[in-house]
Amino acid sequence: MKKIRIGLFGFGKTGKLVANEILQDDRFELAWVVKRTRKFSEHYASRLLGGESKVGAIHAVDSLNARFYAKNPVDILVDFSSPAGYRSYREAPEAGVRIITAISKYEPEDLAVLQDMARAAAVLCSPNITLGINFLLVASQVLQKIAPHADVEIIEEHFRGKRETSGTALKIAQVLGLEKTRHVNSIRVGGIVGRHEVVFGLPNQTIRLVHESINRAAFGQGAIFGALWLADKGPGMYSMEQIVADMVSRNIPIF
Amino acid sequence: MKKIRIGLFGFGKTGKLVANEILQDDRFELAWVVKRTRKFSEHYASRLLGGESKVGAIHAVDSLNARFYAKNPVDILVDFSSPAGYRSYREAPEAGVRIITAISKYEPEDLAVLQDMARAAAVLCSPNITLGINFLLVASQVLQKIAPHADVEIIEEHFRGKRETSGTALKIAQVLGLEKTRHVNSIRVGGIVGRHEVVFGLPNQTIRLVHESINRAAFGQGAIFGALWLADKGPGMYSMEQIVADMVSRNIPIF
Amino acid sequence: MKKIRIGLFGFGKTGKLVANEILQDDRFELAWVVKRTRKFSEHYASRLLGGESKVGAIHAVDSLNARFYAKNPVDILVDFSSPAGYRSYREAPEAGVRIITAISKYEPEDLAVLQDMARAAAVLCSPNITLGINFLLVASQVLQKIAPHADVEIIEEHFRGKRETSGTALKIAQVLGLEKTRHVNSIRVGGIVGRHEVVFGLPNQTIRLVHESINRAAFGQGAIFGALWLADKGPGMYSMEQIVADMVSRNIPIF
Amino acid sequence: MKKIRIGLFGFGKTGKLVANEILQDDRFELAWVVKRTRKFSEHYASRLLGGESKVGAIHAVDSLNARFYAKNPVDILVDFSSPAGYRSYREAPEAGVRIITAISKYEPEDLAVLQDMARAAAVLCSPNITLGINFLLVASQVLQKIAPHADVEIIEEHFRGKRETSGTALKIAQVLGLEKTRHVNSIRVGGIVGRHEVVFGLPNQTIRLVHESINRAAFGQGAIFGALWLADKGPGMYSMEQIVADMVSRNIPIF
Repeated sequence: MKKIRIGLFGFGKTGKLVANEILQDDRFELAWVVKRTRKFSEHYASRLLGGESKVGAIHAVDSLNARFYAKNPVDILVDFSSPAGYRSYREAPEAGVRIITAISKYEPEDLAVLQDMARAAAVLCSPNITLGINFLLVASQVLQKIAPHADVEIIEEHFRGKRETSGTALKIAQVLGLEKTRHVNSIRVGGIVGRHEVVFGLPNQTIRLVHESINRAAFGQGAIFGALWLADKGPGMYSMEQIVADMVSRNIPIF
Repeated sequence: MKKIRIGLFGFGKTGKLVANEILQDDRFELAWVVKRTRKFSEHYASRLLGGESKVGAIHAVDSLNARFYAKNPVDILVDFSSPAGYRSYREAPEAGVRIITAISKYEPEDLAVLQDMARAAAVLCSPNITLGINFLLVASQVLQKIAPHADVEIIEEHFRGKRETSGTALKIAQVLGLEKTRHVNSIRVGGIVGRHEVVFGLPNQTIRLVHESINRAAFGQGAIFGALWLADKGPGMYSMEQIVADMVSRNIPIF
Repeated sequence: MKKIRIGLFGFGKTGKLVANEILQDDRFELAWVVKRTRKFSEHYASRLLGGESKVGAIHAVDSLNARFYAKNPVDILVDFSSPAGYRSYREAPEAGVRIITAISKYEPEDLAVLQDMARAAAVLCSPNITLGINFLLVASQVLQKIAPHADVEIIEEHFRGKRETSGTALKIAQVLGLEKTRHVNSIRVGGIVGRHEVVFGLPNQTIRLVHESINRAAFGQGAIFGALWLADKGPGMYSMEQIVADMVSRNIPIF
Repeated sequence: MKKIRIGLFGFGKTGKLVANEILQDDRFELAWVVKRTRKFSEHYASRLLGGESKVGAIHAVDSLNARFYAKNPVDILVDFSSPAGYRSYREAPEAGVRIITAISKYEPEDLAVLQDMARAAAVLCSPNITLGINFLLVASQVLQKIAPHADVEIIEEHFRGKRETSGTALKIAQVLGLEKTRHVNSIRVGGIVGRHEVVFGLPNQTIRLVHESINRAAFGQGAIFGALWLADKGPGMYSMEQIVADMVSRNIPIF
């Protein structure tokens, strides 16, 4: 089977973990990595990650030009860089490259551009790209509809340094129609990587859907999961929540 | 709207809680209750439950005869009595009565009779009839299919006096293809009413689906849930898991 | 061994559960129960609780007089009635009766009277009299002192109908010096009986102390626990937190 | 205030994390690090950990001799190397060096040598040196004595690759007098770093003491905690459990 070729934008803390996950997965080839800076002691991502091989040629973002995607063809471009990152790969969809962007916050005008890009090739846009969180999102919405009389609360726990409310918790609150100030309970203590719990309370029973993050390599696995799904999709704007909803609907037990 | 008329078999500890839930729900009328014994100081279930009204006439099981269902018509018969209870209402389906039986353990020959009865009217047969547990059953199967590489373990906690492994935990293990002796972890301490947890472990994230029982009135709510679903169904054998799977499939978010 | 004789004030929902626990414990004799109303169909608490024996003679509160305690001697009076209840047993300590009061909220002037009563006999005054909650209180304070750099948050979960913040959670916050509006997170869903969690977050580890209430009979067990401790104590004002702190200090493992 | 000088044995995965914690703590000076191998590209631990300074001179274990501790004086030697590591620092206590060893498994004959060394200087020997786990150990023993009628179960969760039962869980079982095969429940899924829960079940309430590991740097913090405690202690054999028990006894709230 032919490997899926990946180009990666962003090589910060999360970007490195994502690169590492892709490098270790036989179904993929990490074709190249785009970094912000021109300065790098090594020319291959694999070397920077402690390996011996020469995989994932590194390019500086300002060295890109219109012919880059023709000369360095990939099937999917994965973006873990910054909200402005997409400006450097606007022309990728027209070169036949599908896009996965996991940037946490886009302004409406940025989303409009991405929508426009999605007319040429499939674009998957998901701030929290992990399988688990998106399963939580979908399962919570389903349970709320099945048990509309249940009271629902969200508890999110993160390390003390995280000031703002978890974007994932806010997204859960939004899809469940819960007012965030009343129903999102934020715990900030020590070094908790990330924990989200949705509590459904019925008079005689309680159901809890819980997601615990162990480390950010989960984003790499999410990108892989998204890439496999996206590999045969036509132009259009997609989200991980939508992918998971689609998989849920196709995997319900049959009697 | 016309009320759904319920006949109840069984008036033990759980039966009473179920009767109570039905009495408090405006969409239902508790037409009668069948008890095992002839001895009862009151003639109405409502009185035995501490109320003032006269609702739910009590009948002894050995006073029933073939014309009982014609003279005391109900839409749905709910059975919380015993594995042998169905023998006293075999002719009910032919009188147009739908059946809900929540008996925990039937032998294959009993199930064969119930299957036969299901040719005349809808029969809903579910040992654990709570909404929450059945949601856990369905959601676990879906998640296992979406994340086939996840390790799955079951933890079930109950009061010290419960000797055997939880039937619900065994059912979860069975639908997930997990060997019970290796993957069902039973905690027996104090007075825990019932707690089931399915843990899905991925390399970088953990997902937990948890159900906590508060009290057995949950079975009454489960029966009500089943009765509303069953009210317009034709002949056939159904299960709560199937109902919940059906509701899940009809409530997945659309994009 | 001589049984400890108990007199019980209050025979409401909780009072009945407490009476039941005392009746089932061989170390105690339920001598009498004081009810608010003169109307009662039975003359013995044991009968009202469904038993056959005649134990726990019932007295109406307004039939009490100064000679009551001489004529109906008990070792310990347990009060689960109301904030005003103590007014009817002010003279008990002088008759040599020790007091356990589990009333949730006293005004300062009421506490002053109880302090005064405590000069004649031991008075144990504890709004939440369960062993578990008081262990949580003591263990949390100890852990906070051992790990002063830990961030601490309190999560309390109760049934939807409980409007106010849990008094127990407020007490935990107070002894830990945590501002209640910032550090007590209240979850109100369905029928949760009561759950308190104190989360201690350190950079590389999290410690959680959790208490789950199953039913209010725990208060009866708390009263029994307190009564056994109080049985040989001299005059003075005590609390369950103090008893548990005392027991903790006498049960630390020795090396 | 004078800094506490630390010498570190072991510079593997955990050793590096421990070195890092010590380097970041102003109360300590990392005087040197002993590695197994002679081969190292850098001469200072600080450089190997990505820093610019030259702190923590690296020595090969086979270059040590009897005069090493006189020439490279430290207050405390911290050992995260291997069960055989202590053979290379046998003479350290006589040179006035206190020892902290966090090796998981010693044979009785090794312990005998350590006991012997402890006659010259304080030796702290603890397989699991984290504050949290040792608090769990002490608090569990205390609670078991206060509530001897409680049923107790241990749940330990770790990554799928961990084959054996958690040594910490076995230690908890041992101090609580619980048979390991019946009362230690091991969950092996995905990438869980480490989670230990002790469940105390009473008829009407459940108490859970939970410890969650986030990463192994917790061992570094444990070593720091132990070093501060050990700094003024005379000869003798100590354990973290003992230190924590001591701190618990000195921090119980007073009334």
